[in-house]
Amino acid sequence: MAAAGGGNRSWWGWGWAEAALGDAECRQLAAALPGGAAAAANPVPIPALADLELPKPRIAVPAALADWCSADPVERAGHTYGKAFRDVVRALAGDLSAAPDFVARPVGEAQIGQLLDWAGEHNVAVLPYGGGSSVVGGTEYRGSTHAGAVSLDVGRLDRVLEIDPVARAARIQAGALGPVLEDQLRPSGFTLRHFPQSFEFSTLGGWLATRSGGHYAMGGTHIEDYVESMRVLTPSGVSESWRLPGSGAGPSPDRLFLGSEGTLGVITEAWLRIQCRPQRRASAVVLFDDFGAALEAVREIAQSGLVLANCRLLDHGEARFGGAGDGSHAVLLLGAESAGPPVDHTVAEAVGLARAAGGVPEQPRAKSAVGSWRSAFLRMPYLRDGLARTGAVVETFETACTWGIAAELCAQVRENVAEAVREVCGTPGVVNCRLTHVYPDGPATYFTVLATGWAGAQLAQWDEIKAAAGETLARYRATITHHHAVGRDHRPWYDRQRPELFGSVLRAAKQTLDPHGLLNPGVLID
Amino acid sequence: MAAAGGGNRSWWGWGWAEAALGDAECRQLAAALPGGAAAAANPVPIPALADLELPKPRIAVPAALADWCSADPVERAGHTYGKAFRDVVRALAGDLSAAPDFVARPVGEAQIGQLLDWAGEHNVAVLPYGGGSSVVGGTEYRGSTHAGAVSLDVGRLDRVLEIDPVARAARIQAGALGPVLEDQLRPSGFTLRHFPQSFEFSTLGGWLATRSGGHYAMGGTHIEDYVESMRVLTPSGVSESWRLPGSGAGPSPDRLFLGSEGTLGVITEAWLRIQCRPQRRASAVVLFDDFGAALEAVREIAQSGLVLANCRLLDHGEARFGGAGDGSHAVLLLGAESAGPPVDHTVAEAVGLARAAGGVPEQPRAKSAVGSWRSAFLRMPYLRDGLARTGAVVETFETACTWGIAAELCAQVRENVAEAVREVCGTPGVVNCRLTHVYPDGPATYFTVLATGWAGAQLAQWDEIKAAAGETLARYRATITHHHAVGRDHRPWYDRQRPELFGSVLRAAKQTLDPHGLLNPGVLID
Repeated sequence: MAAAGGGNRSWWGWGWAEAALGDAECRQLAAALPGGAAAAANPVPIPALADLELPKPRIAVPAALADWCSADPVERAGHTYGKAFRDVVRALAGDLSAAPDFVARPVGEAQIGQLLDWAGEHNVAVLPYGGGSSVVGGTEYRGSTHAGAVSLDVGRLDRVLEIDPVARAARIQAGALGPVLEDQLRPSGFTLRHFPQSFEFSTLGGWLATRSGGHYAMGGTHIEDYVESMRVLTPSGVSESWRLPGSGAGPSPDRLFLGSEGTLGVITEAWLRIQCRPQRRASAVVLFDDFGAALEAVREIAQSGLVLANCRLLDHGEARFGGAGDGSHAVLLLGAESAGPPVDHTVAEAVGLARAAGGVPEQPRAKSAVGSWRSAFLRMPYLRDGLARTGAVVETFETACTWGIAAELCAQVRENVAEAVREVCGTPGVVNCRLTHVYPDGPATYFTVLATGWAGAQLAQWDEIKAAAGETLARYRATITHHHAVGRDHRPWYDRQRPELFGSVLRAAKQTLDPHGLLNPGVLID
Repeated sequence: MAAAGGGNRSWWGWGWAEAALGDAECRQLAAALPGGAAAAANPVPIPALADLELPKPRIAVPAALADWCSADPVERAGHTYGKAFRDVVRALAGDLSAAPDFVARPVGEAQIGQLLDWAGEHNVAVLPYGGGSSVVGGTEYRGSTHAGAVSLDVGRLDRVLEIDPVARAARIQAGALGPVLEDQLRPSGFTLRHFPQSFEFSTLGGWLATRSGGHYAMGGTHIEDYVESMRVLTPSGVSESWRLPGSGAGPSPDRLFLGSEGTLGVITEAWLRIQCRPQRRASAVVLFDDFGAALEAVREIAQSGLVLANCRLLDHGEARFGGAGDGSHAVLLLGAESAGPPVDHTVAEAVGLARAAGGVPEQPRAKSAVGSWRSAFLRMPYLRDGLARTGAVVETFETACTWGIAAELCAQVRENVAEAVREVCGTPGVVNCRLTHVYPDGPATYFTVLATGWAGAQLAQWDEIKAAAGETLARYRATITHHHAVGRDHRPWYDRQRPELFGSVLRAAKQTLDPHGLLNPGVLID
């Protein structure tokens, strides 16, 4: 599976196959986990695809679609799962039982329409697939009521079709990966400036379908803040909204499809607001002895009216884990960017607020905490995959809540998740926490769990830990996801969070747009 | 009809009855219109309610609801129309044929539920009513398939129920008028800071149901930008979302009800993000010879990353009409506000951009253009009502489009509307234009039409002029409304603008939430 960046995409884990950790590095990492020395002896080998038995296809590629559909085992294996810890563990165990019967790679809407028509006639599930970076089981068929399942990979629809430099907007096809669309915008001096952690391996369509969250801490945090209009192909026809900078005409049509996770239609293209590339940057690092004081500082900043690009708070453990600190402080990374006016005073004012709340600015050093953390951040999924091979249980989850309950929620999540780890793994684990996005009314909080499990038990172990996390979040009425989406894995908690009547409306919308229930069954609703 | 501000609400026109123009002032205004001298002789008198015959109620107030429902003629007359020009003209003509059969004023959700149940049993239409300031026929029953129609005035649900000072959010009942809710927030130092032109006479529920636009030009322009969660009572039950500062869990439930204009449920309360009251302000006025150059300047500012509270561009005629200029220049009003950091440099930078685009900053004068324009702006609806009495045709409409077509669209709207005026009124009229809100990708443009019509013909004259405007907007795929909503009057153009499949989804949502079609029939969908 060759891909845009030049390497080979891993079929079993994150990103580039070539970037996977070697055995020695896996062992070294695992040994650093609490109680990890024992488990670190022999990382499970990465299975050779040729040795694996994929389930026999339930349906064959129809002749009319044969030019752009394939039942090749490598294609099927690569499209079986997303990139959650659960997915990596199953792939490493050689379990490809969820493999789609074939993979469709249309080059245009006409072919997508053809596929949907055929699927409707034959009761075949269609799973829209962008970059395949779902961490919530968003692209994996788990049903039993369809005659088969096809992975609909829109990756060939990867063009920036039009740039409107006056309004600063671009019409972009849904299958464009982050770097692919940025490469096409760059010659005009523009950027979409949406950088989720998955940026290299996720697509615009995936971002829109899951209400993806970008790297920036404030302002337009989610991709929907940049949508001008969308074009969506559904089994009932095409829906296309007008390009409008603002409108008050009825409920927003785009908001129906934003977050619909492939259940209501296939997003084929959208007009997105683009920006001039930032020319000015400023950043600062502030240390706090106490995480609670740091939370207060971040709240002050979030409510100050300052607009920061970065306002990421790492707790003591997360700072150490990410190389941004030695573990003796919580670390607040501040940054501002601008394509126009200077931003030094913005960062200075934020530092002033942090200082007033008890923070101590860190002196600039050769390797900045910001840079160290950023490198570690992008390398993180590879580390997770390496650890997964050692039997470790390593995963993240995120939420958002109001400021009034943020400190207590963080503490409760830590406590309950740590207890679940002790219970299911027999040894204590690590639960780190960071604030990824901040709003005037509350933060988005991101947790990393690192524990020593054992091969064969990792799925069950993680599922219990995740259940403890999900239950805690639900009890506080904190969202089950700030930007990872719902997919199939978050359904139990999403079903509690979503107003029941809104669930009924979603089902009615589904009945209208996808009357045969072909699209991504099991996601969001039944 | 006594109201919060101490005066009496006008049953036939805008605002306070006492603030209506006297005959002499009406004549003076009309004489200033092109071709107006002839028409200005005798303003039609304001009819005495006692002289008017309301349609006999088709249904009686049921005994169980009698404590809070009334068929009193004053109540019925006051709830017959919104406050569009069409509404004022009909009221002045003594035409109250659309009067609801009775007016319900529940004090809580239980009573709303009771009313909906009763209405369902008896096939009675229920028209949710906030402040009654709709300018699009949003509260007027025009159907024939119901046994009757009830105006559901939620004005008694006017409390700020809870303030969360940590997260800066407040739980507010839907029936609170702007000043009523601000009065309750003020003691805590907070403000919702949402000031539509109708602020005094419109409610939070109305704002949410119509995606109202506030006074501020940038940033959070629409009320939906401040919604944390909503509670909505539908004939199928209650829908309540969680308080979340951000979420990526499926399509936003709130976005279904924001803009639903009373067709899907009755909004009873919501958590809104509130702010500290601004302490710092700065403003400036920049003059342009040429409207096109001014448009370019505003685009530069809108795309600069600066966040302004005010960035309102008045064309030559609008500046004169609003007392912000002498008609020899287009006038750009700039302002910034902050509860924290200083804002002088923000305005200075915006002035710098305007100057670079050919603008000339105006020297500060005793009575600033900003202040003059603001006073005129708030007085405007009273002037319109006075002019309506003279047979004039006076109304506004607004849109939004991308920057690339803004200049051409403005010119075309002017031309086509002016031509329609000449055709239907026989004399030229005035078509003024201003930019009310600006986004990086385009402006919201607001038009004022002033023409000499004649009593008895005003409705037909306006309808033809409005059709010319609507057709022009639709041809450019510019929205039929940026913040006035759709109601019944905008249906022909909304139906073209809204993706057809989204219309089907709305109908399915309606079937789910309001299976008997009781709520505001004729609005948004059939």
